[in-house]
Amino acid sequence: MISIIGAGKSSLFLIEYLADYCHVNQLTLTVYDRELTPTISLLQSKSKFVFENLDLVDSEKLELIVKRSQLLVSMLPADLHFKVAELCLKHKVHLATASYVSEQMKAIHIDVKAANLIFINEMGLDPGIDHMSAMKIMDEIRSQGGEISSFESYTGGLMADEDDADNPWKYKFSWNPRNVILAAQGSPAQYLENSKIKLKPYHRVFNDAKVFDIEGYGQLEAYPNRDSLKYIDLYNLKNVKNMIRGTFRKVGFCDAWNVFVQLGMTDNQLKLSFSEKTSLQEWMKSYLPESKLDIKLQLKDLLNLNDPVLLKLDWLGFFENQKMPILDGTSAQILEELLKKKWMLQKGDKDLIVMLHRIEYIHHSEVKNHESVMILKGEDEHRTAMAKTVGLPLAIACKLIIENKISQRGVVVPMEKEIYSLVLKELETMGIVFKDSVN
Amino acid sequence: MISIIGAGKSSLFLIEYLADYCHVNQLTLTVYDRELTPTISLLQSKSKFVFENLDLVDSEKLELIVKRSQLLVSMLPADLHFKVAELCLKHKVHLATASYVSEQMKAIHIDVKAANLIFINEMGLDPGIDHMSAMKIMDEIRSQGGEISSFESYTGGLMADEDDADNPWKYKFSWNPRNVILAAQGSPAQYLENSKIKLKPYHRVFNDAKVFDIEGYGQLEAYPNRDSLKYIDLYNLKNVKNMIRGTFRKVGFCDAWNVFVQLGMTDNQLKLSFSEKTSLQEWMKSYLPESKLDIKLQLKDLLNLNDPVLLKLDWLGFFENQKMPILDGTSAQILEELLKKKWMLQKGDKDLIVMLHRIEYIHHSEVKNHESVMILKGEDEHRTAMAKTVGLPLAIACKLIIENKISQRGVVVPMEKEIYSLVLKELETMGIVFKDSVN
Repeated sequence: MISIIGAGKSSLFLIEYLADYCHVNQLTLTVYDRELTPTISLLQSKSKFVFENLDLVDSEKLELIVKRSQLLVSMLPADLHFKVAELCLKHKVHLATASYVSEQMKAIHIDVKAANLIFINEMGLDPGIDHMSAMKIMDEIRSQGGEISSFESYTGGLMADEDDADNPWKYKFSWNPRNVILAAQGSPAQYLENSKIKLKPYHRVFNDAKVFDIEGYGQLEAYPNRDSLKYIDLYNLKNVKNMIRGTFRKVGFCDAWNVFVQLGMTDNQLKLSFSEKTSLQEWMKSYLPESKLDIKLQLKDLLNLNDPVLLKLDWLGFFENQKMPILDGTSAQILEELLKKKWMLQKGDKDLIVMLHRIEYIHHSEVKNHESVMILKGEDEHRTAMAKTVGLPLAIACKLIIENKISQRGVVVPMEKEIYSLVLKELETMGIVFKDSVN
Repeated sequence: MISIIGAGKSSLFLIEYLADYCHVNQLTLTVYDRELTPTISLLQSKSKFVFENLDLVDSEKLELIVKRSQLLVSMLPADLHFKVAELCLKHKVHLATASYVSEQMKAIHIDVKAANLIFINEMGLDPGIDHMSAMKIMDEIRSQGGEISSFESYTGGLMADEDDADNPWKYKFSWNPRNVILAAQGSPAQYLENSKIKLKPYHRVFNDAKVFDIEGYGQLEAYPNRDSLKYIDLYNLKNVKNMIRGTFRKVGFCDAWNVFVQLGMTDNQLKLSFSEKTSLQEWMKSYLPESKLDIKLQLKDLLNLNDPVLLKLDWLGFFENQKMPILDGTSAQILEELLKKKWMLQKGDKDLIVMLHRIEYIHHSEVKNHESVMILKGEDEHRTAMAKTVGLPLAIACKLIIENKISQRGVVVPMEKEIYSLVLKELETMGIVFKDSVN
C-alpha cells in the first residue's frame, strides 16, 4: 500500500498519477487529510483511491497508517515531516517528500541506510527538478572533460501573462501563501559572486533584483534564495566563481514587495490588535514615522518609490479607506489574509513555471555557456503547472522505489543519474521539457 | 541561608551587601559559580561569604542548593531562571532576579502565590530602578488628582566622559557584550507616539535616534526599547498619548552601529568560516555588493555615511589589513570578539548610568511636565555604576523578603509602594538619587 498524507493544491497530479499506477498494479493508494479537500473532491470521480480523515494529533492512527504502508508520501508542512520519518524508520517504511532535507532528517541518514530504506527528499520542482536537470547537464559536461566554472539557477512560480494582466503585481498564489509572505526571512541569503562570498540580510534581499532575458519568454527578475553555498558540495562544484540559486518574479515585483519588507510589515512575531474601524492605511502608517504628508508622498520620500510601486500598493487598497482583513494577528498574518483575497487564482487562470540554469564551463581551454530553460503553463486554476512540477517527480520517484529501481539507501536527494535519468525522461513525455543552448 | 547563583561582573555589590547583612544577622551567604570569578576574588578578602563551584549540568547539586536555601538569587542568563524557579517552587524557597519576567515565569504565578512564596523579578536597574522611580512619581501625581498624559523613560549604561575620550564610539562594555550586539533583534520595537501605535523592525530601530538634553549631563541620543506598550497596563496608564521606553547612547553611536545592522553584520544565525588570511575588511565586503570603489567610498555611497561614522569603523580596524578575531562563528559572534577587545573597561575606567523619566500630566486643567534624572558614576572598572544599580536593588529586596516586609506573593515586579518606597529610600543613602523638576 502507498499512503499520501496531505491532499492540498500541490497533491493533485501526485494523487492522479499514483492512483492510476496503483490501479494498474493492484496496489492500494490511500490519501489522508484532516478534511475532504477540493483536490480530493475533484479527483474522486475519475481516479481510484481511498480517502480517509486523519488529524495529526491522533498519533495512534498515524502510526497505524505508517505500519500498514510500504511507502509513505508526506505532503505535510515541512516541519512535520520528521515526525512521520521517525515512524517510517521504526516500522521500516520508505518515505518520499518534496521538501528540503532538514538537519534532523539528515541526522538519521545512517539509521535509515542501516534499515535498508530510502527516504527521498527535495523531489518536487525547486528543490527537485532543478537539482535533477542541473545534475544531468553537469554530469554530461564533466563526462566530456569540461570543468564547470560558474553555476546559476533560478525558478519562479508565476502566472501566464494573459491571466495576470488585470493585476499590477503580476503575481498570484500558485502555492502556499505563507511561504511567499515569509520568503527569505531568517538566515541571510548567501551566494558566491566573482569568487567572493556575498551575504544579504533579509532587509536587503529584495533591494536590487537582477533582470534576465529568458529565451522563449522574455524578461524576469530574480532575488537570491537562502544558502546557495551548500550546493557547492552537493553539486560537486569545487572551482566555480559564481554559485547562486534564486527565485524569479515578474519585473517590478521585488521593488514593490520590498516596501513591506522595509517597513517591517512581514513581521511574524509581534501580535497586533486593531479595532473594526482601522484601515489598511492606518496599519501601514503604524510602520511609518509621524508625518503630515499624504501617505503616498511620505512613502515616495522615505523609500524612494516610483509610481509603478505606488500603483501596486494602491491596487491592494492601502490608499483608500479599505478595512483590515483580520483584526488580530502578526503583520505577516494580516498581509496573508489580504493577499489571499487579492492574489487568488480565478476560474480558468493558468499559472506558469519558469526555470533557468546558466552553467559556464571550460572545455579544451574554451569558455562555453550552457543555458537550459523549462517553461510550463498550467491548464487551469486546479491543474496548475506548480502542482504538476511538484507532484509528478515525486510520483515517479514513488514508482521507482516500489519497482526497486533505485539502489541508493538512506536520506537521499535526487543528485544521482540512476534517479534523474529515469525521472526526467518520463517528465518529458508529460510536457516538462528543457530547451538547451550552448554558446 | 541565602544563595546567589552567578558571580559575574554585575554581582559585586549584591554579594557585598548581602555578605554584610548575613554576617550581622547570623545568616550564611553562599555564592555559586562555575569557577572562581574575578568578582569573587576581589571580595573574598573583605566580605564574609562561602564560595562553592557549581556546574549547572549538575542538576542534583542545584536541587540540593535550592533545598537548603530560604531565598535564592539567580544572576544566571535570563533563559536559565525558569529551571531554578521550578526547583524553588518545589522546595518552597523565595526567588529574586534582575531580569524581565518571561512568559514561562508568568505562567506559574498562581502556583507561587498558593505556596505563599515571592518570586521577585525586574529588580535591577532597567528593569528595576526605572519601574520603581517612575511608579513613585506617578503614584504621587495620581494621589494629588493629576492624570498622566504622556510617559517617556530612557536609561543608558555608558562611560564617564573622561574615560571614553580615546574611543570614538564613546562606548565600552559595562555589562554583557552579547546583549549589546543582539539588542533590538527579534520582534519589532513598539511604542505609542501622539496616540498612534508605532512599529519599527530591527533594521529601522537605529535609523533616527532622538537627541535629548539632560539636566546635569548634556546631550544623549536614544533608540526605542522592545515593546513599550505592555507597560501601559503595568503602569496603569490608560489615557497617555505617548508611551515609550528607550536606551541612551552617546550622540553618534546609533548612526555608526546602524552600519552593522544595515549590512547584516549582527546576524547570529548563519555560521561563517574564514581562512587565517581574511581581514576585517574582507568580512565586511562580503556584506557589500561587488564594487571597484574603495570600501570607504562604497560605504559612504551605499549608506549615506558621514565622516564621524567612518572614523569609528576605521578605529575598529575595518579599513586596514587587520585580521579576524576568530575564524568561525556567526557575524554576531565575530563582532562580539572584536568589540570585547576594543570596548573593554581599562584599569580605573569609570562607567556612567543615566536615567531620565519625562512624565506629562494634567492637574487642575493645567499641563505639567515632571522630569526626573538619575546620574551615577562608577568607582573603577570593577565597582561600576552598572553593578551597583543592578545589584543593590536586588540585595535590598532580598533583605525585605527575609525580614518579611513584603506582603505580596506570587511572581512579582516592583510596582507597589510597599516595595519601591523602602528600596528607593535605601538606594538614596547609597548615592542613587533622582533629581526632579516640574514645569
